[in-house]
Amino acid sequence: MAMALKLYELCGTDASRVFSPFCWRIRMALIIKGLDFESVPWRFTETERLAFAAHDKVPVLVDGDRAVPESWDIVQYLDATRPSTPSLLRGNPAPYLFVAAWNDTVLQPGVAKLIVSDIPALLGDMERPYFVESREKRFGMPLAQVTEGREEKLPAFRATLQPLRQALKGRDFLGGDKPDYADCIVFGSFMWARSVSPLRLLAEDDALHAWRERMLDLSDGAARRAPCFGG
Amino acid sequence: MAMALKLYELCGTDASRVFSPFCWRIRMALIIKGLDFESVPWRFTETERLAFAAHDKVPVLVDGDRAVPESWDIVQYLDATRPSTPSLLRGNPAPYLFVAAWNDTVLQPGVAKLIVSDIPALLGDMERPYFVESREKRFGMPLAQVTEGREEKLPAFRATLQPLRQALKGRDFLGGDKPDYADCIVFGSFMWARSVSPLRLLAEDDALHAWRERMLDLSDGAARRAPCFGG
Repeated sequence: MAMALKLYELCGTDASRVFSPFCWRIRMALIIKGLDFESVPWRFTETERLAFAAHDKVPVLVDGDRAVPESWDIVQYLDATRPSTPSLLRGNPAPYLFVAAWNDTVLQPGVAKLIVSDIPALLGDMERPYFVESREKRFGMPLAQVTEGREEKLPAFRATLQPLRQALKGRDFLGGDKPDYADCIVFGSFMWARSVSPLRLLAEDDALHAWRERMLDLSDGAARRAPCFGG
Repeated sequence: MAMALKLYELCGTDASRVFSPFCWRIRMALIIKGLDFESVPWRFTETERLAFAAHDKVPVLVDGDRAVPESWDIVQYLDATRPSTPSLLRGNPAPYLFVAAWNDTVLQPGVAKLIVSDIPALLGDMERPYFVESREKRFGMPLAQVTEGREEKLPAFRATLQPLRQALKGRDFLGGDKPDYADCIVFGSFMWARSVSPLRLLAEDDALHAWRERMLDLSDGAARRAPCFGG
């Protein structure tokens, strides 16, 4: 019998509340593929625990005696080694890299500016100082100041999502009639926010809200059952 | 012997100066595929001339007695009917739609605001009033006002191109080691600008400039030979 896959995922004091956008990409990939996995909680600063993978960040997938770090490598590994599951990079992987590039340079930084101050409360005493210090350095200001007046910043944030709305016109998923890795990438950013913040990023009448609902519904609502603040 | 393909393309008084971003997508697709084609000049307001295709916009591809309008349909048609040429939508076409969605909602409107006032001078007396009136209505102001102080707007425009730079890290083309339709889509917006405006959209030390040079070099510099103002 095959050993279950293990996925090292970022969490804070609550091991069931996974909140890295990159971990969520892979979690959702596993959900879509219908592959069982064991979640291994990992916290900021626990770099030693990833030494076996010669890496210092999550996600790390462990498949028997094989360790695969980096979300992009993990999804390719899963497509290659689980050919009977739905393929997530269908055909040339290059255009998926543009989706990731847009996500990483526009969507994810945009989400961060709205929710980053919600994260310290979820962290333990060991990792909170690391997180606050490194993020305040990145933003050049206290985290509470980054997200100050965030309700008023929502319209500008929502305007940056126009490429997603345009791409979803006439189809259910970025992948077309079925979700694929393009959906996983973007959904990861939204699940990150949903897992840490009560802020409602999407208006209910937004076509993207309907898309996110479809993603939450996949595999009997697997992502919907994850701990969240209703955001 | 097969009849040469015909491509109805947008131009002004100079039939060799094609300046629709959508026409350039297909022109570049044909160049990459190595398919000969005859360019049929078409001007704004000549809707009657496209009646045979039951359409009112270019590009329209004519392949023998078959007329194919709409760039997205044309590239799929070319991939399907010319299987011995390089495929431009490799695998699932859906992620290419996200590239097009970003292009059409971010890049193309951004380019338009920088170059739209250069276009009327290229148009004949028949179509100039139509163009100016419809675009001034769209922008809600005179076209000269839209592009006023455009040199100062370049840094903000260039900042919006970050997803492209990120996607091109470590690879020559958006398509990977070879150009594909993702490259054609984005290149079309740049060729539109280059064909109508002296404004230099890209700094010479920008990685995107190097990518555009690679695109201009394809097929012995086919796109480079198109009339331009050096932009």
